[in-house]
Amino acid sequence: MRRTSRDIRTANRYEVLRHIIADSPLSRRELAQLTGLSQATVATLVTELLDLGLLTDVGFEDSEGGRPRGLLAVAAGRGALVGVDVAETYVHAELFDLSLKVVARADREVRPGENRPEQVVALIADAVDEVLAGHAGRVLGVGVALPGQVDREGGVSVYAPNWDWHDVPLRALLAERVDPPLHLDNPLHAGTVAELWSGAARGREDAVVVNLGTGVGAGLALGGGLYRGIGNSAGEWGHTTLVLDGRLCHCGNRGCVETYVGAPGIMLNLRELSPSSPLLHPDDQTATVRALAAAAAAGEPVAVQAVRDTARYLGAGIADLVNLLNPEVIVLSSWVTTYLGELLLGEVRTAVARHALRHSLARAEIVLSPIPTDPVCLGAATFALERALAPTPTMRRTP
Amino acid sequence: MRRTSRDIRTANRYEVLRHIIADSPLSRRELAQLTGLSQATVATLVTELLDLGLLTDVGFEDSEGGRPRGLLAVAAGRGALVGVDVAETYVHAELFDLSLKVVARADREVRPGENRPEQVVALIADAVDEVLAGHAGRVLGVGVALPGQVDREGGVSVYAPNWDWHDVPLRALLAERVDPPLHLDNPLHAGTVAELWSGAARGREDAVVVNLGTGVGAGLALGGGLYRGIGNSAGEWGHTTLVLDGRLCHCGNRGCVETYVGAPGIMLNLRELSPSSPLLHPDDQTATVRALAAAAAAGEPVAVQAVRDTARYLGAGIADLVNLLNPEVIVLSSWVTTYLGELLLGEVRTAVARHALRHSLARAEIVLSPIPTDPVCLGAATFALERALAPTPTMRRTP
Ligand SMILES: [Zn+2]
Ligand SMILES: [Zn+2]
Repeated sequence: MRRTSRDIRTANRYEVLRHIIADSPLSRRELAQLTGLSQATVATLVTELLDLGLLTDVGFEDSEGGRPRGLLAVAAGRGALVGVDVAETYVHAELFDLSLKVVARADREVRPGENRPEQVVALIADAVDEVLAGHAGRVLGVGVALPGQVDREGGVSVYAPNWDWHDVPLRALLAERVDPPLHLDNPLHAGTVAELWSGAARGREDAVVVNLGTGVGAGLALGGGLYRGIGNSAGEWGHTTLVLDGRLCHCGNRGCVETYVGAPGIMLNLRELSPSSPLLHPDDQTATVRALAAAAAAGEPVAVQAVRDTARYLGAGIADLVNLLNPEVIVLSSWVTTYLGELLLGEVRTAVARHALRHSLARAEIVLSPIPTDPVCLGAATFALERALAPTPTMRRTP
Repeated sequence: MRRTSRDIRTANRYEVLRHIIADSPLSRRELAQLTGLSQATVATLVTELLDLGLLTDVGFEDSEGGRPRGLLAVAAGRGALVGVDVAETYVHAELFDLSLKVVARADREVRPGENRPEQVVALIADAVDEVLAGHAGRVLGVGVALPGQVDREGGVSVYAPNWDWHDVPLRALLAERVDPPLHLDNPLHAGTVAELWSGAARGREDAVVVNLGTGVGAGLALGGGLYRGIGNSAGEWGHTTLVLDGRLCHCGNRGCVETYVGAPGIMLNLRELSPSSPLLHPDDQTATVRALAAAAAAGEPVAVQAVRDTARYLGAGIADLVNLLNPEVIVLSSWVTTYLGELLLGEVRTAVARHALRHSLARAEIVLSPIPTDPVCLGAATFALERALAPTPTMRRTP
């Protein structure tokens, strides 16, 4: 209710385009049904999107006994979007066409200790340059997801606990190397929007996307849309207390969920069981988690126990989300899930059941993200797309 | 988007009436501005509400240089609503006029062990009879807030941990004693709606209402409206884990927030400091909390320390809400807050600051509920009002 008519117009354009991307081709009538907007509003929005070159007419379909209806599809090749997933250990950049298909990808490694802002900016810029190298058409925008708390209006990394970043003006730094528009947000929000568009939260009313990486967090999709909180910082489940006075966390608190189920926490779970385990690569989270996954899959007792311990902590933390938010689905995502998800899932479900209220548990599915590419890149690209849809003075057709 | 046009119509009626109750008198134009609805829609809704006898014309006001505008107010005396707050230790019933002013009140005590469904039904029915005794006009509905998880569609108490109730068909039992329509929900939701209408969450985008009683919970007002979750069970913060493997909870989990900051948890905090404290009334939570508050206010060291310990647990639990939900305001409410709120507030703020992320903390006020009567009765009455606004076939005026 506090949104301006310009906000509502952007949101409606985005809704129409989102449905066409998801279910192309669609008629105007089908769009009205799917979006709940009036046919007149849909007709206006479709005309605008056609004029912007984002949609294309793809022929006609006979409706039953009625007059033929125009079908609309995304003009996939008429523009591109870039989505960048910046994590503590890597940078992934993906180039998308307007149907949100990945057309190019570049990866960079963030080495331990090489995480000063100018180093990270260089990695992002290099990766974006690489995916755009063979691309000739227009780029509607670049979305960048950064770990931690992000002021998306100001384009500032407010706080990244694992890098000890405070108030880094990342969009300004990045603008010297990457052409705008640049859109900053965090991976929780990006990954959650990706699940809403094309993953396990699609069509769900209330969903939680649990990101398991170096840091951990819970993106919240409540009432069918992303919930951001008043300062765009909702989702910091990784810094909720699981063990009062427990393990010390980067954030200054003790016993945070993240210290038990983030990649460094998992390494510590393993080290507590076997201080000299050959699975431990002290300076390499990725190598350790990969080795742990392989060993657990092969049935090595220490590895199996470390996964079980991690699942126990994770289950207690997820039960908190089930009890507090009563969601329909909990989606596990991010790179630790890629390695350990299948191994964790059964134990996690058992642990959640031990901690959660029966009535809430009964409604909560727990699944692995079904998105085959990097959901955070996809979500970051959709943020850039959303921004590109905001009407500018020259875009306005009706008063 | 998945709401039917009937749902939307009810919601719009409710919005219009809500604004008139809060800011009476209002013109149709002001209502359109406040609700974001079109002037035509507001005009239709106002006509319907006038026809239903819920509104009244209260004269005209000159707009600046324009034609005079009709001002609308609630027809306060043209109907009544009953709101009932059922807690583990008491039943409060309040009779409201249509402007939601309290016009009568009745209290009953729920004695230890006297909490079988038929006993609680008798207490509710007696209290409702008492507030209605002198009332001659029409009653639009009775809202009843019950502790624990409530299926409001089915009118069933799904689970009340402190009473060990499972799937009790309370609306059906109550219908033998109290005239319908009867509307069931839980005190978290009722108290949260009361704060949204006329308390500390009014005009706030994202708020959390922390109920501190025998049980504890956190009502969530996200995006300006009550968040219920998929099974109407959102808010069970009392059963999130604060101390893994900590104190055993009624729910079967260990270390739940409730076991440290619910009234029995506070008694245990006191007992751990001083097993034979004269402040302890083993079978009477209310007397113990009252005695503790008086002793702490008088500076008795053990009482001061018990309040401090409670604030420490409470602060850690509230920091979880700050980090996960990034709200604008946290409102402390319910009967334990009535006794201990002023004593807890400073220590709680300090404890939250120790655990929460700085950026999220900076946006989160922590306040005591400003509602002078029982917010849960008020909220339960508004649920009954909302239900009364649902168009029935005979109410429909336009196709
Ligand atoms: Zn932390
Ligand atoms: Zn519990």
